[in-house]
Order: sequence, then structure tokens, then C-alpha cells
Amino acid sequence: MKKDTKISVKQLERYPIYLNFLLSLRNSNIEKVSSKQLAEALNCSEEQVRKDLQVVAPNSSKPGCLRDVNALIAYLKEYLGFNKVNQAILVGVGHLGSAFLSFKGFSDYGLDIIAGFDIEPSLTGTTINDKPIYSIFSLDNKVKELGVKLAIVATPKEVTQEVVNKLINSGVKAIWNFVPIHLEHPDDIIVENMDFARSLSVFFHRINNK
Amino acid sequence: MKKDTKISVKQLERYPIYLNFLLSLRNSNIEKVSSKQLAEALNCSEEQVRKDLQVVAPNSSKPGCLRDVNALIAYLKEYLGFNKVNQAILVGVGHLGSAFLSFKGFSDYGLDIIAGFDIEPSLTGTTINDKPIYSIFSLDNKVKELGVKLAIVATPKEVTQEVVNKLINSGVKAIWNFVPIHLEHPDDIIVENMDFARSLSVFFHRINNK
Repeated sequence: MKKDTKISVKQLERYPIYLNFLLSLRNSNIEKVSSKQLAEALNCSEEQVRKDLQVVAPNSSKPGCLRDVNALIAYLKEYLGFNKVNQAILVGVGHLGSAFLSFKGFSDYGLDIIAGFDIEPSLTGTTINDKPIYSIFSLDNKVKELGVKLAIVATPKEVTQEVVNKLINSGVKAIWNFVPIHLEHPDDIIVENMDFARSLSVFFHRINNK
Repeated sequence: MKKDTKISVKQLERYPIYLNFLLSLRNSNIEKVSSKQLAEALNCSEEQVRKDLQVVAPNSSKPGCLRDVNALIAYLKEYLGFNKVNQAILVGVGHLGSAFLSFKGFSDYGLDIIAGFDIEPSLTGTTINDKPIYSIFSLDNKVKELGVKLAIVATPKEVTQEVVNKLINSGVKAIWNFVPIHLEHPDDIIVENMDFARSLSVFFHRINNK
């Protein structure tokens, strides 16, 4: 992934949308794509498409020329860090946490969940999708032993802040949080919220303003 | 919910973040909050906070005055449509779909999943969290019978477009999509993507640019 802090979140979030569209073209055995097609698929201007793709795949296309679908997919995956393997642990093996451990699709996005943690004693020592579940009480030791810096949090709301504090104390540097609550954390720790409440807000607003 | 199409998605997405922070204050028995505290929690300016809250709770505060936490929570929930009951069906009772049917927290956000649909015959006639699972082959009839206009999609990628087409043909008007693929749909159908790939992109980008 390129070092480029100037790119906006909005722009960054468009890249996986390009990627999904390109993957759908590849599935239909389409090998070339125009900026116009990309602009229509993303509901933005052609100028926007050219500007966006210039960041990811510089000099990959002249105006008016078709772009190679496979090459663009490769550039985008590289840029988004999906070609790397990012190891993470998961805390909270409830319904959602179990679904994450079972899901085999994360590897396409460079994420490898290597273990789960839960407070429930009957889960300790079991596996889901060949991934071991450890007791939450061994979190500190295991995080150090595994040398893992990323964690996914899918616990009940009431304990999430406590879990996040424990993770940070154990050496975790970045947290992908699925719990819709306000979290306190030091500035040097990255917390990215995958907040369904935010998505639902937009969904309901669009429905009600139709 | 107020009719207000001029609000940006970015602004709209801030409201559930305010709400989460205010709920955390209420949990700590804090009854009053300043714009300054809200600005710090959301990492934005006080002017931004005042502008945002003016939309949701007009005339609720004079500059420099403290705001009532409970009143703001009520205003935000009302504005976001979380006080209403929005009935939806869910298609794809796999790991993620089962987790959604089991999750009891959606009611806090105005979402009520009333039934699941799947192609797997052994699931037909069963229930999860008291919610019935029907065969995908009865989708058209059931959607009409239930009169439901919202659907959540959590199927395998390969069949998502087909399922979305079926839903639209059955009368569904709005789809909350959890599958990271590019979907084709008519302009008058609302498709809101809860795309983990988008969130992961931002997460990895922040990690790599730290």
C-alpha cells in the first residue's frame, strides 16, 4: 500500500466499490472497461473516476482508452492492502463473532482471523472453522505469544470498553469494532468502527425521504 | 423523521455517533452535556456540533448552555427513525444471517426482522429466536402476504443478484445489503450497502499510513 495520507475517507471507500464492479465484470468474462462505464456503475463523473484511478494505477490509461479489468483489479487489491495477510484475533464468540470465525471470505480481503477469545468457559478449547477459542483470561499472554497487533471486537456492549482496554494493554495497536458504542482510547490506537447503526440511519433516512 | 433531503450522508452518519456518546453519558448518570464535550468526543468543531444538533433539535440550546442528555437522546432517536418499527425480512440464513436473526439489539434501532428465507430444505419450518424460516421458493407469496417492503440480504455472492431481482419483483422497495458485490437495481429501489470491505479498506489504510 502506498503512503498517502492526503486521500479522503470518502475517496478511499470508493475503491472497494470499483473493485466489486470490476470483479463482476471479470465474472462475466469482460476484459476491458471504460471510464464512462465505471462512472455509471459508481454514479459519479468520469473525471472523478480518472482522478481516483490515477492514485491507484498511475499512467495506466490515456483519456478515451479502455482499461484492462484484470490489471485494475490487481492494482486496487494492492493499493487496498488486500494482497497482504493481516493477522487478527477476535474477542466475543457470540452469534456475530462465530459468524466471523466461520466466514471464509475474509482472506480475499487480506484478513486472517487466527483465534477467538470469550469469557464463556464451555467455549475454551473448542475450535470454529479450525480456529482455536481461548479464555478471555489468557488474552494478555496469548496476544504477546501470537505477536498479533490487530483485534476484532464483537462483545456485548457492557464489556466492550473493558475488553478494548485489555487489548491495548496487551499490545494491540488497531481495533476493528463491531459494537455500536462510544469507545475511549489513546490517540495512537486505531479504532475503526463497523457500525450497523450508522448504516441503518442512512438506510432509514433514504427510505423516509424518498 | 423530518423530511430533509439536503443533509449530507456524512452529516447523517454523525448522528448515531452522537447518540452512542450520549447513551454512554446516560449510563454514567451524566445528565448535562456541553457542545465542547460533544465536539471532543466526535473529534470535530463546536460549531459543527451546534449546526448538526440544530437540525435534529431546533432551538434546544443557547450558545454556552448545557444540553439535556435525555432530551438529546430522544430527539436523535426520533430523527433517525429508531423510534418506529420497521419490519424486514432476511434472505440467507447462513452464519451471518443466523446471527442477525438471533441478535436482540436491532429493536433499539427500529428494525424488526420478522422472518428468514433460505434455499436449504432442512431450514424450512424451523425458527431462530422465534422467527420463522421459510423456503426461498415461497419468497414471492410470503413477501406479498406479509406486506413487507424492506429486506436484508446475507446470501452467498453467487446468488445475491438473483435474490435481489426476486425481492424487487415481489414488491420489496428497500434492501440492506451485506454482500460485498456490485448490484444492479432500478433507480427507485433503495439499496444500502453495509460493506465490510469498505470498512476494512479504511482500517488497513489507517494502519499502513500511521
